[in-house]
Amino acid sequence: MSYANWVRTELKDLSQSLGFRYLPKEELESRLARLRKGMEKAEMEALLVVQKMDCYYLSGTTQDSLLFVPLEGRPLLMVKREVERARVESPWEEVVGFQSARQLPDLIHSHCGRLPHTLGLELDVLPVKDYFRYQDLFPGARFMDASPLIRDLRKIKSPFEIELMRVAGDIGRRVYQEAREILQEGMTEIEFGGLMEATAKRYGHEGLLRVRSLNYEAYTWHVLSGPSGGIVSQSDSPMGGLGLSPAFPVGASRRVMRAHEPILVDFGICYHGYQVDQTRMFSIGEMPKKFIDAYHVCREIHDAVLAETRPGAECEAIFHKALRLAEKSGYQDSYLGPPGLQTRFIAHGIGLELNEPPFLAQGHSYPLEEGMTFAVEPKIVFPGEGAVGLENTVLVTHNDYEILTPLEQGIFQV
Amino acid sequence: MSYANWVRTELKDLSQSLGFRYLPKEELESRLARLRKGMEKAEMEALLVVQKMDCYYLSGTTQDSLLFVPLEGRPLLMVKREVERARVESPWEEVVGFQSARQLPDLIHSHCGRLPHTLGLELDVLPVKDYFRYQDLFPGARFMDASPLIRDLRKIKSPFEIELMRVAGDIGRRVYQEAREILQEGMTEIEFGGLMEATAKRYGHEGLLRVRSLNYEAYTWHVLSGPSGGIVSQSDSPMGGLGLSPAFPVGASRRVMRAHEPILVDFGICYHGYQVDQTRMFSIGEMPKKFIDAYHVCREIHDAVLAETRPGAECEAIFHKALRLAEKSGYQDSYLGPPGLQTRFIAHGIGLELNEPPFLAQGHSYPLEEGMTFAVEPKIVFPGEGAVGLENTVLVTHNDYEILTPLEQGIFQV
Repeated sequence: MSYANWVRTELKDLSQSLGFRYLPKEELESRLARLRKGMEKAEMEALLVVQKMDCYYLSGTTQDSLLFVPLEGRPLLMVKREVERARVESPWEEVVGFQSARQLPDLIHSHCGRLPHTLGLELDVLPVKDYFRYQDLFPGARFMDASPLIRDLRKIKSPFEIELMRVAGDIGRRVYQEAREILQEGMTEIEFGGLMEATAKRYGHEGLLRVRSLNYEAYTWHVLSGPSGGIVSQSDSPMGGLGLSPAFPVGASRRVMRAHEPILVDFGICYHGYQVDQTRMFSIGEMPKKFIDAYHVCREIHDAVLAETRPGAECEAIFHKALRLAEKSGYQDSYLGPPGLQTRFIAHGIGLELNEPPFLAQGHSYPLEEGMTFAVEPKIVFPGEGAVGLENTVLVTHNDYEILTPLEQGIFQV
Repeated sequence: MSYANWVRTELKDLSQSLGFRYLPKEELESRLARLRKGMEKAEMEALLVVQKMDCYYLSGTTQDSLLFVPLEGRPLLMVKREVERARVESPWEEVVGFQSARQLPDLIHSHCGRLPHTLGLELDVLPVKDYFRYQDLFPGARFMDASPLIRDLRKIKSPFEIELMRVAGDIGRRVYQEAREILQEGMTEIEFGGLMEATAKRYGHEGLLRVRSLNYEAYTWHVLSGPSGGIVSQSDSPMGGLGLSPAFPVGASRRVMRAHEPILVDFGICYHGYQVDQTRMFSIGEMPKKFIDAYHVCREIHDAVLAETRPGAECEAIFHKALRLAEKSGYQDSYLGPPGLQTRFIAHGIGLELNEPPFLAQGHSYPLEEGMTFAVEPKIVFPGEGAVGLENTVLVTHNDYEILTPLEQGIFQV
């Protein structure tokens, strides 16, 4: 049997029997309709989607492809590799293969009858060299940044997406519960984290977390014991950990974990591209009162944020309310990082990427909306000593919220 | 103690006691001298390094930073987060913090006394939005693509780099040997791969592999059993595997592995940012003769490539020699992928990224040089049935080669 025939006849059944969920056509149509409202408003005649997660959102596949979306008429999915598989994965009917970017104008012209005068591209991630090539391929076209449109679209999650996030949350719940059995005195941080990760993958975690950025690389987890928790690193995060080398100076290290230390475990899960993020404290035997007290303040702040979480609540106001609570409790110098390095957000949006709207942060004065999802993560850091924190991923519901990481919130003491 | 003081006094000792190796000043000076030769030839007055791995290569740190390299005078490392840690990690003396890109022209002006008229940027990865911002910040400057220069510089590895790759190779050797004890009938591909990964991390593997690309995400491993090995995916690779979902359609799946199937394990290791790549065949009991025969042809091709490997050998010629050998053995329709999807390279350069020069590939007519490193990977794919292959990472020495992944090359039958 030829490869193409094998894919056409066998791949869908095989993959579905192994847990694949494909994007329903109706879901895709509804995303397209919402996208086109934004395009119309922005006077964008067409959109060329280049980034993998945006393409997944708007086509259902992550094969090496570009999606052309005209304001009217059918979208055209152009696939470099592998087109037969993309046809299985995407509900779009117009799926064509190509070898070289030089073919794109012809493919688009024969699909639409003409080339667009204004073309949206994701300019926040598209490399300059590719932009110059598109300028050559579409001479006279005016290019616009389409990322704000797509990000805006993606910030409200559908029931289909929420269900995938619930599954991710359930994988996380099982991983943290089994982690209790894995943790032992004398293990290194990385050994513990690696075994948690192996457990998570067995349940369907995809390993990669994704951030919309050139240089910020997400990875699955922080396992930060004692002084490791007090180390800041490259990311805009209250703590970063020591990591494994100057090339990977973040997350778990080869430090041996000891009894009575705070062990902060911040572990994200990715299922069908949808991410949840969560943090819990572990300790071998009881940890010192200083850390337990700080942890209880994190819990108070976490609960205070959730008490405000509903459609219409203003994001920046929630950030400031949490900040005031930390200050009132006496943690102004250790809340969200050491002095001078404190982060200015208490929650970040989460979905296909770890840095999507909404941000419950300074300067973000917009309301929460039904269907938004975010990770709330109050953390307290003592340089040279350790860090504590709690994190959950939360959905804004019709007039309330739902925790998507339904795991007990106490300290995991073993 | 303040956080900055703690970093200054404690971080270096703590990290070195846990295995960190910092870039020696002499090594960095020699890289800078070679870079400047290229800059001079390209008439590039200054270079602003923005990409994380290029910055690591040219400064020793991966903190969130930009490196400004004037043609003459000292480089200036500008760090957004975290500057104290960057000072520990980088041998450069001029290390300053900044909060916003708006400060960059002033920082550079006060360092050099003026702003450059021609400025190199890595245009193959720099996002368009950032490019527009640099155009505003450096009005009148002419921007040039600096990536070819940096990639050219990085393609010859120093003894310091080779030593890090040897350590990576040794981690790989231990992981494959222990994998023999891990593999059991009835395990899923992802379960086996996850446990190999946990083992690798325990020995210092950093988890992430890196590719210079917007959309191509490297991950650690293929574990492809039976028909999984016959599935192609998004990457320019002979096979891709089924993966875990349409969002991650590559690598190990939740397929249960059975006895007598070919199990292809392609597992990369990253140590201090330096990567090695290797593939070995596993089976539970003996695999069918069809696969054993094909594997022996992969080994012949692998050995034939190595027999040509020395400074001066022409890359494309080696690719064609390997191709002829595959054709002569009757595998023209399954060598490097199914018909129509066959890749056109037999080896890719490897180091800080998985897609760096040299490429032993069609259209790459340049000679091998001492200090180059590449991964050679002959593979044979039978759609619907399975795949076999062998891969090693190799260093070109003064007049020969050295295998950096020194692991037995037979089938790992358990």
